[in-house]
Amino acid sequence: MRTTRTQVAIVGAGPAGLLLSHLLHRAGIESIVIDHRGYEEIAGTIRAGILEAGSVRLLVNSGVSDRVLREGHRHDGVVLRFDGENHRIDFQELVGESVWLYPQTEVFLDLSARRAADGGDVRYGVADTVVDLAGRLPTMTFTEPGGGRVRVEADLLVGADGSRSICRHAFPRGARDEWFREYPFAWFGFLTEAPPSHDELIYTRSDFGFALISQRTATTQRMYFQCDPGERPQDWDDDRIWTEMRKRVNGNGFELQEGPIGAKTVLPFRSFVTAPMRHDTLLLAGDAAHTVPPTGAKGLNLALADVAVLSEVIADFYRTGDADVLDRYTARALERVWRAQHFSYWVTTLLHTVGGESPFDARRRRGELSMITGSRYGAAYFAEAYTGWQTT
Amino acid sequence: MRTTRTQVAIVGAGPAGLLLSHLLHRAGIESIVIDHRGYEEIAGTIRAGILEAGSVRLLVNSGVSDRVLREGHRHDGVVLRFDGENHRIDFQELVGESVWLYPQTEVFLDLSARRAADGGDVRYGVADTVVDLAGRLPTMTFTEPGGGRVRVEADLLVGADGSRSICRHAFPRGARDEWFREYPFAWFGFLTEAPPSHDELIYTRSDFGFALISQRTATTQRMYFQCDPGERPQDWDDDRIWTEMRKRVNGNGFELQEGPIGAKTVLPFRSFVTAPMRHDTLLLAGDAAHTVPPTGAKGLNLALADVAVLSEVIADFYRTGDADVLDRYTARALERVWRAQHFSYWVTTLLHTVGGESPFDARRRRGELSMITGSRYGAAYFAEAYTGWQTT
Repeated sequence: MRTTRTQVAIVGAGPAGLLLSHLLHRAGIESIVIDHRGYEEIAGTIRAGILEAGSVRLLVNSGVSDRVLREGHRHDGVVLRFDGENHRIDFQELVGESVWLYPQTEVFLDLSARRAADGGDVRYGVADTVVDLAGRLPTMTFTEPGGGRVRVEADLLVGADGSRSICRHAFPRGARDEWFREYPFAWFGFLTEAPPSHDELIYTRSDFGFALISQRTATTQRMYFQCDPGERPQDWDDDRIWTEMRKRVNGNGFELQEGPIGAKTVLPFRSFVTAPMRHDTLLLAGDAAHTVPPTGAKGLNLALADVAVLSEVIADFYRTGDADVLDRYTARALERVWRAQHFSYWVTTLLHTVGGESPFDARRRRGELSMITGSRYGAAYFAEAYTGWQTT
Repeated sequence: MRTTRTQVAIVGAGPAGLLLSHLLHRAGIESIVIDHRGYEEIAGTIRAGILEAGSVRLLVNSGVSDRVLREGHRHDGVVLRFDGENHRIDFQELVGESVWLYPQTEVFLDLSARRAADGGDVRYGVADTVVDLAGRLPTMTFTEPGGGRVRVEADLLVGADGSRSICRHAFPRGARDEWFREYPFAWFGFLTEAPPSHDELIYTRSDFGFALISQRTATTQRMYFQCDPGERPQDWDDDRIWTEMRKRVNGNGFELQEGPIGAKTVLPFRSFVTAPMRHDTLLLAGDAAHTVPPTGAKGLNLALADVAVLSEVIADFYRTGDADVLDRYTARALERVWRAQHFSYWVTTLLHTVGGESPFDARRRRGELSMITGSRYGAAYFAEAYTGWQTT
């Protein structure tokens, strides 16, 4: 077994792990990033597509790439559709911000290319990863695609390894708490070969359940509809899917642009937080520490925001030599995490239909939607959360 | 039995009934108002004390009185207190509005005096009121304090007779729907002879439950704390009340001004809406049509807002002779009613502790409070709702 030394060992080469490695590099701190997935596998995974204003600034200003500005689609607003009427929330007018439609896979490609150009040490397709906090230095040990076993000794170990994180489970028993919430529904997501049905996202509440119209390219669109968590993609042919979508969305002059359907998936809904996000030399970032339901488009953005804070805290640690500064990470990151958790929960309950909701609560929701879409203050509250809080 | 003719017969001489009578008088429309309560009884009832900006403008601009501006206390903000810290919402800075601390009993005195000065026909202390929609004209029949039975024939009958409304029950079976929600707690309210603990209201969330610090005069304060709906005022002596209040509110340099306690009451929590608010010649206003929990201070304001709309619709009816215009009342009034229902519910759930709340939801609430108090957009959303929506 070969042993290598680095400053920060990072498990997970998704956007969180790669951005951290990039930001540390800019601060003069070395890292090694590993992932059990191959490069092609990560690049081929269809994931979220909305970047907050702050996420875009982070990618552009830290020198990752400005491709998002050139090839992404700036959205200056979003539509909430209920009772068959569209209500637009104008981000620019209300809070002076925008979001960008730019799929997570493009963020990965930009980060991966930037790390490669900067000579970053990123190893895809490793196997049998083990992390160990017991020694004088924390280690991550793994098998390289070629078969050699490698042990990396580091000052710090970062788990950016997603919701099934092995690093999270390396916390000693009792060293962290967990909070979670299950939802009685899921999203059925699919791609369709069709022109855009609209130029901005449409979040729809209907008596038949939630639906989301989003875009991808001029010829490929991404859409979702609320479904039972037990649904199986293979049980839904194109006709059945479009019938369901039409019921929820079409009407009052609005009609979906339909086309052949592919890439069907059922997305689970779960809210999860663990804290603290640091134990000794081990730190968690992104989905390893928290997952949100997809409604608020916060998952990727929260991961990038974590990493922005974490890179500062790690730089402070190297500058001061004081490990106590690492403790600031949890408090600084969690403020945004719980806001995003609330926002994701809130948008979910606002727009999804839940069996057992009382007639009073169904009407009250209409009052809440009126408070949001019928007032510039309500709309700005929504717009700030959707485009991303500038504080913290 | 004596029979009298008027244009609008109004059951209920609280603020809603009296303001309607006043606004109709200004539009040249006659009315008679009755109430089973005596003048002294209404004047002596301790009720809500916060008037929205729009309520104040309505009272002042319609010529009821400007006493609220001279003797009421303008509050330019409110404090949300949680985790032992005060977070002020600055109404003026955020939305350019204020609220006025001016107890409902003062509103009643102003309205009653204005109606008397204008020769209004208001009869307190009547008994055995019966309303009848079956004849050619609707009627209200009652026994005067002196004993004489009187029948009033009118073009329209308005039920402004509170949450136990007899007018609401005069709707034919099936002519209206009801929505309601019960809450697992109540408010224990009391007066205390003490100087103000603070110059603005303090809404407190604590691990021991909600508490509200409000004011009344320089020497008398009004306070509330969340309690079990089964609590009895007589079981709570001064010591026990102050012990409970201190636990919930004191700390971090804040200390309650304490004094002898009087006028203890347990206020029930219930959300209720009925619609439509019109059937044929019968119309409902205020608590007769909807009740809100006291948390958002919306009950009186909603009643006054109903009446502002209703007086316009009735004036339209007389101008056009078209009874169909009366149907506009429900839609116009309900928009605000459901906003107020949501706001009252939301502020209640935001600040009260509920048994059975999951640890995730308790933390999520903290994220929500951070979204409100940690952002000018969130604070403005709250401020607009608290001071009253200017639309509709």
